[in-house]
Amino acid sequence: MHSFEELALEFKKKFETKHFPTIPESLYASCDYFLAQGGKRVRPVMCLMGNELFDTINPDAWHVATAIELFHNFTLIHDDIMDAAPLRRGRQTVHTKYGDNTALLAGDVMLIVAYDYLNKINNNYLRRVLSLFNKTAREVCEGQQMDLDFEKKENVVLDEYIRMIELKTSVLLAASLQMGAILGGAGEGNRQHLYEFGKNLGIAFQVQDDYLDAFGNPEKFGKDVGGDIRQNKKTFLLIHALQVANDDQKKELLQLMQNNYENKVERVLNIFKACNIDEWAWALKQQYMDKAFHHLEETAVVSSRKKPLMELANFLVQREH
Amino acid sequence: MHSFEELALEFKKKFETKHFPTIPESLYASCDYFLAQGGKRVRPVMCLMGNELFDTINPDAWHVATAIELFHNFTLIHDDIMDAAPLRRGRQTVHTKYGDNTALLAGDVMLIVAYDYLNKINNNYLRRVLSLFNKTAREVCEGQQMDLDFEKKENVVLDEYIRMIELKTSVLLAASLQMGAILGGAGEGNRQHLYEFGKNLGIAFQVQDDYLDAFGNPEKFGKDVGGDIRQNKKTFLLIHALQVANDDQKKELLQLMQNNYENKVERVLNIFKACNIDEWAWALKQQYMDKAFHHLEETAVVSSRKKPLMELANFLVQREH
Repeated sequence: MHSFEELALEFKKKFETKHFPTIPESLYASCDYFLAQGGKRVRPVMCLMGNELFDTINPDAWHVATAIELFHNFTLIHDDIMDAAPLRRGRQTVHTKYGDNTALLAGDVMLIVAYDYLNKINNNYLRRVLSLFNKTAREVCEGQQMDLDFEKKENVVLDEYIRMIELKTSVLLAASLQMGAILGGAGEGNRQHLYEFGKNLGIAFQVQDDYLDAFGNPEKFGKDVGGDIRQNKKTFLLIHALQVANDDQKKELLQLMQNNYENKVERVLNIFKACNIDEWAWALKQQYMDKAFHHLEETAVVSSRKKPLMELANFLVQREH
Repeated sequence: MHSFEELALEFKKKFETKHFPTIPESLYASCDYFLAQGGKRVRPVMCLMGNELFDTINPDAWHVATAIELFHNFTLIHDDIMDAAPLRRGRQTVHTKYGDNTALLAGDVMLIVAYDYLNKINNNYLRRVLSLFNKTAREVCEGQQMDLDFEKKENVVLDEYIRMIELKTSVLLAASLQMGAILGGAGEGNRQHLYEFGKNLGIAFQVQDDYLDAFGNPEKFGKDVGGDIRQNKKTFLLIHALQVANDDQKKELLQLMQNNYENKVERVLNIFKACNIDEWAWALKQQYMDKAFHHLEETAVVSSRKKPLMELANFLVQREH
């Protein structure tokens, strides 16, 4: 059994290989550039953990983990084009550095190379892994489209926001675990429990992310607190606040969203606090964590094997606030 | 055995099915819209022909043909974004009608659904077909990147232009035939000959396309003659003209490319004719057709089975000029 840190370190080492040809240099340099920016590599590690939960690591799990990480990076490159984001993790995004057209192609080719890694795995599970990978990939695109739609939509209901987060973020975490489980020979019941563990963990993570953006300790959070508020981003907090606020508060919130007052963040936070949005969000996060852990408990393997997944969950969601 | 027309008709019927889910409607309506615009469906028919050359049509060939046509449409949607093209076949492009972001996602999801069709085929050839599909898909992206690079490059050499056309256009025709052949149980030699037939046919087709844009009969050609010249597009003709023209002609050509004189097309055509570019291009096309037919002759099946492929070649390249 390996810890989260051990698997992450090992994956990072293996992932530092040449995934692409060299010519045309204008295309593949942009792919290499983006991958070299690193990342936590959470998804591939989840695949490895889902695998090791049932057996020693199947060599094919490394191929699937690589495919998952390439897929994830493809979505980031294309999302950055759509968001016209100049920076990611403090460095220029691919489209800023290489232009929109090359970034578009870099994403496309990264997705194709992900399928090349899937095609390396044993015939016994190629079809099942491909099927889950395709379904998940489609869902991630659907989630991104919903997110685009929400930007233009005035009233977003909490349920549809949760569905969007599920598709855009959670299903890939869930599927990463489940692909590992498939390669580990897990039965249908265990595969489902792991999927639900990953899915609920993903939603809890997003609730926390939205929470920290508003209520996080700037020193510990490391990000610009209030960024979502300044950008009028639809978050768990804003959507719920618009549902529970009284008429005056709602009117003020909507007015604040139309403008960029200097004290906008402070005023929105005051309304959030008056509506107990912070407590509500923390409880919602807890609710999804409980669901996640319930499914992990129900997974029929000896409990000592579940330790790395517990660690992972705590790494992702139990950050200080 | 079926003729090109019969296979095209049958494929079009089968392809008129629902390839995508319905939600989110904003995403999938754009996919449906683009596919409903039709097209000659040459590539999927080539897959079916490559298959029927060796045996009665394998049901899996329809899945692969569908995957190929979806892949081709994915490239068209993304290419139209890159070219900022307002129209395709007289109708609004996806990004013009639905916005760049949705068009980007529509292309992504179309590529993913193509892989879903590949995942339906028998285990016996899944891996080989996937491998060829991935390689080809990567190459098409590389060709598109080279095309983007050439726009900014002053001196494009004929050999690199041919390589770009090979990647951007020919390899998909070649691979379509070869995937059909794989499903038909063809041996390595025949698979290679068919690939070369498709590749050379594709280059001949592109030479002809460039030729007709400059020298075609406007009534028969149906397209706006001189479009490439007005847009300073790098074509077989322009690249060769810049190589063989004398100093005065070259100077005039370069000057014409910097401007949009009213008689630009006429003046460029005069230089082309003075340099015998028309004869050169027609001979070049013939040279690639000869290569293509040589490989078809070398394909070891009884010659009567090759009739539909002959028809196809003539449909694609023997258009009047």
